[in-house]
Formats: sequence, structure tokens, C-alpha cells
Amino acid sequence: MKHSDSFPIHLPLGFTFSAGVAGIKASGRADVALAEASPGTTAAAVFTKNRVVAAPVTLGREFLAKTRGQVRALVVNAGNANCATGPAGIRHARRVCSEVARRLKVRTETVLPLSTGIIGVPLPVEKVLRKLPELIATRASTESAVVQVAKAIMTTDTKAKLASAYFRTKSGKVNLLGIAKGSGMIHPQLATMLVFLFSDIAAEPGELRRLLRSAAEGTFNCISVDGDTSTNDTVLLLASGRSDISLANSGVRGRFTRALAAVCWSLSEQIIGDGEGVHHRVGLRIEQARTRKEAIEIAQAIARSLLVKTAWAGADPNWGRILAAIGAAKPSVDARQIDILIGDQLVCRRGMHHRFDRRRAHAEMRKPTYEIRVKLGRGRARARFLTTDLSAEYVRLNAEYST
Amino acid sequence: MKHSDSFPIHLPLGFTFSAGVAGIKASGRADVALAEASPGTTAAAVFTKNRVVAAPVTLGREFLAKTRGQVRALVVNAGNANCATGPAGIRHARRVCSEVARRLKVRTETVLPLSTGIIGVPLPVEKVLRKLPELIATRASTESAVVQVAKAIMTTDTKAKLASAYFRTKSGKVNLLGIAKGSGMIHPQLATMLVFLFSDIAAEPGELRRLLRSAAEGTFNCISVDGDTSTNDTVLLLASGRSDISLANSGVRGRFTRALAAVCWSLSEQIIGDGEGVHHRVGLRIEQARTRKEAIEIAQAIARSLLVKTAWAGADPNWGRILAAIGAAKPSVDARQIDILIGDQLVCRRGMHHRFDRRRAHAEMRKPTYEIRVKLGRGRARARFLTTDLSAEYVRLNAEYST
Repeated sequence: MKHSDSFPIHLPLGFTFSAGVAGIKASGRADVALAEASPGTTAAAVFTKNRVVAAPVTLGREFLAKTRGQVRALVVNAGNANCATGPAGIRHARRVCSEVARRLKVRTETVLPLSTGIIGVPLPVEKVLRKLPELIATRASTESAVVQVAKAIMTTDTKAKLASAYFRTKSGKVNLLGIAKGSGMIHPQLATMLVFLFSDIAAEPGELRRLLRSAAEGTFNCISVDGDTSTNDTVLLLASGRSDISLANSGVRGRFTRALAAVCWSLSEQIIGDGEGVHHRVGLRIEQARTRKEAIEIAQAIARSLLVKTAWAGADPNWGRILAAIGAAKPSVDARQIDILIGDQLVCRRGMHHRFDRRRAHAEMRKPTYEIRVKLGRGRARARFLTTDLSAEYVRLNAEYST
Repeated sequence: MKHSDSFPIHLPLGFTFSAGVAGIKASGRADVALAEASPGTTAAAVFTKNRVVAAPVTLGREFLAKTRGQVRALVVNAGNANCATGPAGIRHARRVCSEVARRLKVRTETVLPLSTGIIGVPLPVEKVLRKLPELIATRASTESAVVQVAKAIMTTDTKAKLASAYFRTKSGKVNLLGIAKGSGMIHPQLATMLVFLFSDIAAEPGELRRLLRSAAEGTFNCISVDGDTSTNDTVLLLASGRSDISLANSGVRGRFTRALAAVCWSLSEQIIGDGEGVHHRVGLRIEQARTRKEAIEIAQAIARSLLVKTAWAGADPNWGRILAAIGAAKPSVDARQIDILIGDQLVCRRGMHHRFDRRRAHAEMRKPTYEIRVKLGRGRARARFLTTDLSAEYVRLNAEYST
């Protein structure tokens, strides 16, 4: 299994892509995209856990339930989240889907709508509809078309986010391509995470769902910039079956699982690394927890703490803040069992100050990427988690942004 | 009932106060304080919910349990939290208490230790001990001594925090005095909240406990600057009984409850308003919740959201962020029932955009203090909550601070 963060892209068979300028983004950049999937394509999705959800999330859930995981197209817009838009928002999203369906001669329910952008402003649906003929006419199965889609779904992102992987079996090659958006800046209505994963493997929707949930659990659910959950967050996995290699084949499942994990992890890193206000990516390794859930909860408590995140912005090896954040977390851990390491240096032993080289710790924390390990001394479960510092620039960028 | 945020201070009978410079604070400012209480003084406490607690919190809990709420003195230091200091930390705190007890000729367990400052550094116990004779010699029952105590317990605070109230009965006057520290800046090891409430009312410890819990619930537990809980947070209520007016008397209980609420609310406002990086104090009024607990959880979710707090820093009437924060909160509220008001202006009606005067909303949000109301449409419970914006200056001040 090989994967690349950018080029070469391993294009999965059975998909075409296109993007265009509908005029939703004030910048005049590309803001609509289409991905068409060949007949028989199966799909699985993970949607936001926020209770306030955008119209496309409501429709997407409904459509996937109706078709039992059959998808023929994704139609995406950036610049408007179509959220808090009421019944009109649902009507608008449905109209876009039915228009794509009519032109592609597929069922409306096999067309999934996706939106990202500002909350509470009606979707300029006519602008999207006007652009559909062009999107359908220009769709192509090329690297260039894929990159165009990645750019069209960007909002506050500064870089297009792509990752791909492949593996060979006796019967041929299986490709996996991931396209994502989402950035380290705290622009909530704009910082929705959208992830589209395309593969030419053949798979039942139920199996895709299990694999996707598990992959998302260890990657997209283990990153945190600002602790907030968007109203539009969506991760989709589509399998066209056009490689003629089935996930049910022995040996294939394990390799596909690894390819999926690698692509999802790469996209997670790209999301965490993007955003002008982020100066440090911090990998948290929580070890010796009783359960993985406990390890994740501890990681989230650390990643959520403003005190911890601002200490990181100042490259301050202030382990007391980490200890206090753990103490305020849900699992009732015993502080007297906790070891904390910054890089490879022990800074807190059994919940107490441990003599360490402060200059070396400071130098470690000035790196753009580094690791902090927390040993809980309670068990054998562990989790890795990616997060960021919180810099003054980050807050300023966000505060100055106005709807 | 009358209360004042500063002068005149209504000095309760039965207490003496003193403060001094022990040399713990690098600034050379006053950093130790003593409050002595007359025989028979009863006490109640609310301690931090953080699972990592400082040595004085451990000892304070133990002492109050042993004496069943009898207190004869508080001994406080600022500049060092005596937290994550292991068994030596406990020994140090106990030594300070026993030395105060010996000199005042009271039981060690009736002397409560309190510390605030940096975590993970051994308490310079000799510095504190050396200063005790002076603290004991200079104690006085004067406004000036009270103000000195308020100053000595400051860390990142920019202002001393005092509030007092009194009421008259046929049998005489009851006084209540509150001294607090804690600031809006995110200096975790330094931003511990300490609150000392002194009254000359006569009360059983059990009754004091009930009144204090209830007062803290509606005030100190309804403020949030950075969502973090300190390892040293402590609220203490002492009753000397020297007014000869008993809490058990008819009519007294209600008046004392109101005086306590007023003093606690004033101190809460002073804490929220302090800190150089805080530009806006925002009062959240959560209404139409099913339970008060639910209202508080919604308020906390809003107050914790970086996205919301940075929008406030930019005076941006971005109600979508508030809606998304509510959607991510624990109670599963229905977004379609939610109304949001900024000042007196409706900006979101039933979870959707409501046409409003954006300039007026922006002007409202540029005020140093304003209110946001959220109506959940689920019931009749409500809560008010005080929080702040999150400015770039705030983060910069904190990131630049180094242990």
C-alpha cells in the first residue's frame, strides 16, 4: 500500500469530476462541484453530531436511508451552508438534486447535496442551478478535474486537500482518493469539514459503513482545532466496484482498511495544519488509559483547554495546565499516577514536578509539530489525537471576520 | 438590605485581618494574609470540582470535616498554589496551620490554609512562617486591614475585589463582607478563584453550608472566563455569631440569603470584569428551558465556544455560532424552537434568520457590557450566566506569560 499527500493521484475508476464558478463566493473563485458515480456505486456516510444540522445533512441522511446506500452523484457548493434556512433550505437542496438527477437520468435520491459556508442566509439556489449544465458537460476523470473540485469546496482553507492510496492484488489494482476541506482557523460557519472518499473497490453498503465509522473514529474524530462541531460536517465514502475486486475477498479487507486509514489520517493532518493562525500542530498520545474512550476523553479535555492551547502558542512547557485540564475531564483519573512528557523529556512524574531541561522543552515546543505524551497509569488503552495551539493571530483573524 | 461594591465596608463583628510581604511574589508586593475569627465561629466551604487539587484544598476539607465546621483562622498566601507538590506540600500547609494555631492558642484543625499561584513549585514555607508573628501582631478590625488582605491575595488581578452588605433587625445589625480574587485573564495557575465571606450572624454549620451552596450555584458557578476549573478554587463562609442575631430567627434567613446573593453576585461581576484582555462582559439569559440544569448547560456550551467568544471580540452579531454551540451542547434541544436576542433585538426566530438592524446589533455588542437572550421554547426554567469575549490581546498576554 502506497499513499501520497498530493501527486500522483491514484484515480479510482468509475467517477467523473467537475467544478465551476456559480458566484456564491464573494471572491469570484470556483464554488460549485460535481462528482458523478457509475451505476451500482455504494456509499456510506458519517454526519455531524451537532443537533443543529444544515438542510443538506437532513436530506443526505434521508436519501441514503431511502436508497440503502446507493449513490450516483454528489453536488457541492461552498460559500453558503444552507443551514438555519428552514423549510425553504430543504426545498432548495432538493431542487438542486432533482435537477442533477434529471440531467444525469438517475433517481433524485441517489444525488447527495453538500454545502459549506455561512449559516442563516438563504441558498442562492438559482446561481447553483444555472451552473449545472456546465458542470455536467465538463466532467472528466482526470487529476486536473479532481484538483478543481478540491479547490471549489475550499472556504477559509489556504490549501486544497487531497490524499490517495492504492494497492495491487492478483486480480488488479484498487484505488482510493480523498478530497477534503476544513481549516485550522475558527470560522465556524466556514470551517465545516467535508471529506469525500472515492474508491473503485466493490463493497456492500453495510460493510462500507463499518469501515468508514472505524476509520473516522481514529482520524477525523481525533482532531480538534477549536472544540466546536459544525452543523454541516460530513464524511462520505463511495465505492464504484469498477476495479472488479471485492472487499469480501480474503486479504483485500485488511489492505483496504489500511489504505482508508492512511488517506483519512493524511487528510486529518492537512486539515489540522491549515489556517494562518495556527503555528503549532500538537500530537497528543494518551497512554495507559482503562479504555480507548477514556483516552479520547482525556485528549479532548486537553485539546479544549484554552489555558493549555495558549501555553502552546507561547511554547511554554507549563505542564501544570495540562494536569489541571486532565483533572477537570470526565474520567476520574488519579493525578498521582500521571506522567507527562514533552517530546522525549519527562516533565511531570506521578503528578509532581520532575526536574527537566526547560530550555530543551521550550525548543521542542517551538517546532511546528511536536508530541506530548500523557501516561495515566490506569490500563493499556491508548489514543493519538491531533490538535493545535491558540495564537493571538488566530483569534484576531477570526474576530475581524464579520458576517 | 443594602450592598456596596467597595466603600463603605460593613465590617462584621468578631474578625481581625492583617497582610504582609513574605517575598513569594517576585513583585515584592503583599502576598500573605491572615483572618482571625472569634471563638464559636462556624464555617462552610465550596471547593473546586477539579480532580487535581492543591494541598490546602485537601487539608481544608479534612479540617472542616474534623471540626464539623469550626474555624478560628484563615491563613492565605499568593504567588504559589502549593499544588502538584506531593506529600511535602501537605506537610508544608499543615506546618503553617499548626504554627498559626500555636500562636493563637487554638486547635490546628481550626486554621484553614489557602494558596494561589504557580502549580508544581514547592511552597517556600519558611518565608510564610517567618511572617506569621508580624501578621498576628498587626491584625485589626478596620477597613484598611480588609483592603490589605484583598490586595495580598491578588495574582493577575488588576483590582482588589470587595463587596459588603448589611441589614437591620429589631435586635440589631447583621454585617456581611466578601473578599475575592480571580481575574478574567487566562492564567490558570494564577487565576484561581478565592472567595472569603465573613458575617457576624449566628448560624449552625449545616445551615451555612446549604445557604452557601445555593448562593454559589447562582453566582460563582454561573460565571465562565475560559471554561477551566482551577485546582485551588475555594469559597468560604464564616459566621462569628457576634451580632447575637440568629439565622434561625423568623425573617432573618430570607434577608441573609438575599444579602449573601448580592455580595456573591457583585464579587462574580468583579471577577468577570477584571483582566486586561477582556473587552466585553456578556450576560447570557437562557429562558424557556425544561430545567435550570439544562439552562446552565446551554449557557456553559455558549460560554465555552471559541467561535462564539471570538465573534463577541469582533462585536459580530453572528447568531449562527450561538445556534451551532447550542446544537453541540448536552441537552438535545430542537433548533426550530430557538429564539435569540442581542440586546432587545430579535436576530434569530425559531432557529432561522430574522431580519434585524445589523448596525444596531453591532453597536450593542461594542458596549463593555450587554446581554444575549436565548429562548429555548421548551419550558419555564431559566438561568443567568456571566461570561466574556476572547480577544487577541487576551491570548497574547497569556501566551507571553511563562512559568
